[in-house]
Amino acid sequence: MTRMMSLGLSMRYLGYHAAAWRHPEVDPGGASDLAHFAEVARLAEAATFDMVFLADGIGIRAKDEPAGSLCQSAQTAELEPLTLLSALAALTSRIGLVATASTTYNEPFHVARKYASLDRISGGRAGWNIVTSWSDAEAQNFNRDSHLDYATRYERAAEFVEVVKGLWDSWDGDAFRHDKAAGVFFDPAKLHVLNHAGKHFKVKGPLSVARSPQGRPILVQAGASEAGMEIAAGSADVVYAVPHDIDTARTYYAGLKRRVAAQGRDPAHLKIMPGITPFIGRTEAEAREKYDLLNALVAPELGLSYLYGQMGDLSGHPLDGPVPEPNDPKVRSIAQNLLTLARREDLTIRQLYTTIAAGFGSRILIGTAAQIADEMQDWMEREAADGFNICPPALPIGLRDFAAEVVPELRRRGLFRTDYAAATLRGHLGLPMPASRYGTPVMPSR
Amino acid sequence: MTRMMSLGLSMRYLGYHAAAWRHPEVDPGGASDLAHFAEVARLAEAATFDMVFLADGIGIRAKDEPAGSLCQSAQTAELEPLTLLSALAALTSRIGLVATASTTYNEPFHVARKYASLDRISGGRAGWNIVTSWSDAEAQNFNRDSHLDYATRYERAAEFVEVVKGLWDSWDGDAFRHDKAAGVFFDPAKLHVLNHAGKHFKVKGPLSVARSPQGRPILVQAGASEAGMEIAAGSADVVYAVPHDIDTARTYYAGLKRRVAAQGRDPAHLKIMPGITPFIGRTEAEAREKYDLLNALVAPELGLSYLYGQMGDLSGHPLDGPVPEPNDPKVRSIAQNLLTLARREDLTIRQLYTTIAAGFGSRILIGTAAQIADEMQDWMEREAADGFNICPPALPIGLRDFAAEVVPELRRRGLFRTDYAAATLRGHLGLPMPASRYGTPVMPSR
Repeated sequence: MTRMMSLGLSMRYLGYHAAAWRHPEVDPGGASDLAHFAEVARLAEAATFDMVFLADGIGIRAKDEPAGSLCQSAQTAELEPLTLLSALAALTSRIGLVATASTTYNEPFHVARKYASLDRISGGRAGWNIVTSWSDAEAQNFNRDSHLDYATRYERAAEFVEVVKGLWDSWDGDAFRHDKAAGVFFDPAKLHVLNHAGKHFKVKGPLSVARSPQGRPILVQAGASEAGMEIAAGSADVVYAVPHDIDTARTYYAGLKRRVAAQGRDPAHLKIMPGITPFIGRTEAEAREKYDLLNALVAPELGLSYLYGQMGDLSGHPLDGPVPEPNDPKVRSIAQNLLTLARREDLTIRQLYTTIAAGFGSRILIGTAAQIADEMQDWMEREAADGFNICPPALPIGLRDFAAEVVPELRRRGLFRTDYAAATLRGHLGLPMPASRYGTPVMPSR
Repeated sequence: MTRMMSLGLSMRYLGYHAAAWRHPEVDPGGASDLAHFAEVARLAEAATFDMVFLADGIGIRAKDEPAGSLCQSAQTAELEPLTLLSALAALTSRIGLVATASTTYNEPFHVARKYASLDRISGGRAGWNIVTSWSDAEAQNFNRDSHLDYATRYERAAEFVEVVKGLWDSWDGDAFRHDKAAGVFFDPAKLHVLNHAGKHFKVKGPLSVARSPQGRPILVQAGASEAGMEIAAGSADVVYAVPHDIDTARTYYAGLKRRVAAQGRDPAHLKIMPGITPFIGRTEAEAREKYDLLNALVAPELGLSYLYGQMGDLSGHPLDGPVPEPNDPKVRSIAQNLLTLARREDLTIRQLYTTIAAGFGSRILIGTAAQIADEMQDWMEREAADGFNICPPALPIGLRDFAAEVVPELRRRGLFRTDYAAATLRGHLGLPMPASRYGTPVMPSR
């Protein structure tokens, strides 16, 4: 039997293409506007996506390097994920709502509380994408000069997640008796005080929010690094995997599922959903035109800014000439990845920055709906993915294309639902209710 | 000419009366339910209130003292203010949305960002009630054993507010040019980096949210303590004042307005809005019945828990007998306030805890709509208040009474608006757009 896929929609900024805001049909102010996101979320809900997803950084990561590039970037102003998704919870009824929150510059009590609240507000549709913060730009907004080292970040993240999960178990599902006659608001045996005391956090609890309608909010993880994969294997419900070619993806998939099993969990209960950025046309040529149109809108300074961190300032070189060896000794050791890519694919400077600007690490697919569905089906059947995080190049137009062309094709093939069968995000993903650490009922009484 | 009053609605939990959840017409699960708050906010908007307001604590402050009291308290589970008000922003269109956030266990970047986002989501209706956290219960959720001392809390709060205001000035109102042809997303001269480095915080900025539609969100303060009054005089747009008798209130009002003027601000630009908890009947006797009905629903253990912190455990004494001198030496020095009140008003133990349970520090008014309007008018005319923060004993019923009976009475007297004249909370309050610290335009281009 064909496995059904899960679909997420990534909707940060105005889509994944750096020049999306310049597209003639895109509203450049959309990322600061609730109406834009309401339209996107409703489109995704009409197409029965499992969830919408908001990536996040706590600050503006882009630097003005080379000078003059920052003012060309739309990745400078946006709405904050938890406030935005709470508003969208009121404007949608079925679709899951996944927001990113960093474990590096937050406190677990705040995160547990806000996501528990979003989960109740949305009737069991909340998810938390667990990340660590790695940029100096963010560190400098939180009393530091530079970001925490990798090991400390992930050690803190692992403990952070444990505390949050513990706080979410504060109340049994049937704790609130609301017995007006007896004057008993809750059953004291069904309230649990966490009393966590660890290396990074000391958190007493209990949480002041009733249990989640889905037991606890869904946990999402990038699962890219070694430490990230361990957190994912132990706790995550969904992972946004990274590999772009199917062989690497299959190896990653099998390895992560083994880790899940090794932690005593059912491997089917972790959904691996790699990101794809689809350019869709009625013909392959039309899809390519859509790709080229956006690429032509990447201003040179902005394009060069995506190379700056790894290759230094390439402003002096012809954009349509070969990618030079960097002169700057600071970057020579980290330039190799991009340089190897440029040499292998024989890319000019413009072509090199365009490959970054077009998808920011998401896998780019250019073709007809049937071709894109073929590719997705192949990844499903060969166990490289359990679903996909769709990262349209521009919003809402890229989502409209996907919903109108690819979703019906996936449905015809029996790969994707035709309607929602569940009320919660956990239900859409087909995941069981998690057990409370106290072995007590997890279903809320209301 | 009669001054028009401002009206806020305080809607935490199920109203200000401790036994509200046991009232036959109240939904005991309402404080965990978006639908309850949506009904309350829409009622308040239909009555053209300036704003709804959510008090907050980051944890459950109530203790199980005497044992068995905590499970009788509805002040144990609720939705988190910022997520809740973001959802309500999508379900309302005119009313202001004021959420409390503590300066003690938060970071200014998070607070600046979330309120800026709520402000954009709501089209300029956000307000921040600035508080410090004073309970050990909250401290223990944030890596501490006990709460910070008063001086440190307020010093931190003052710097926190300055950083937040600075971050809100990151973008001029017309910074985003969105010039697709030229490829210029924003004008770099209109982006300001804060670079704050102070005693408690080092925050570089800029904020990653565009400027607020109302220049900046409205700032609210309790203004109760000396240090709080200084912060309020320097920065607040609204103060929830404390005094219960009109002479003390007039002195407070005049004093605070003088402090505002001393800081170079127009005293009219700080609105003083004391809290009142109205019990409204067609006759005074009916109003008194409503008061007595709720009071009779305060379970003895719960009632005694409100005396416990100041008077120790009075469980052994007859509830309808006189209030005894506390035996516990730990509380003898702090028991005097309540003891003096009990002696002066000749209160029994039950009557003493009921006066607390009925309003939690809010001023209780029991009478007909005309009597309550008289009282409010008197406070307005004699410059004891610029408006009121209505704290109904139970929700939504207490708000329904107020909207149906008192609001029309206030309108007949020309004391309250008959319809909204503005689109933003700042507009409802009649406050001018604040100047940016950079002397640049504050109105957003969109």
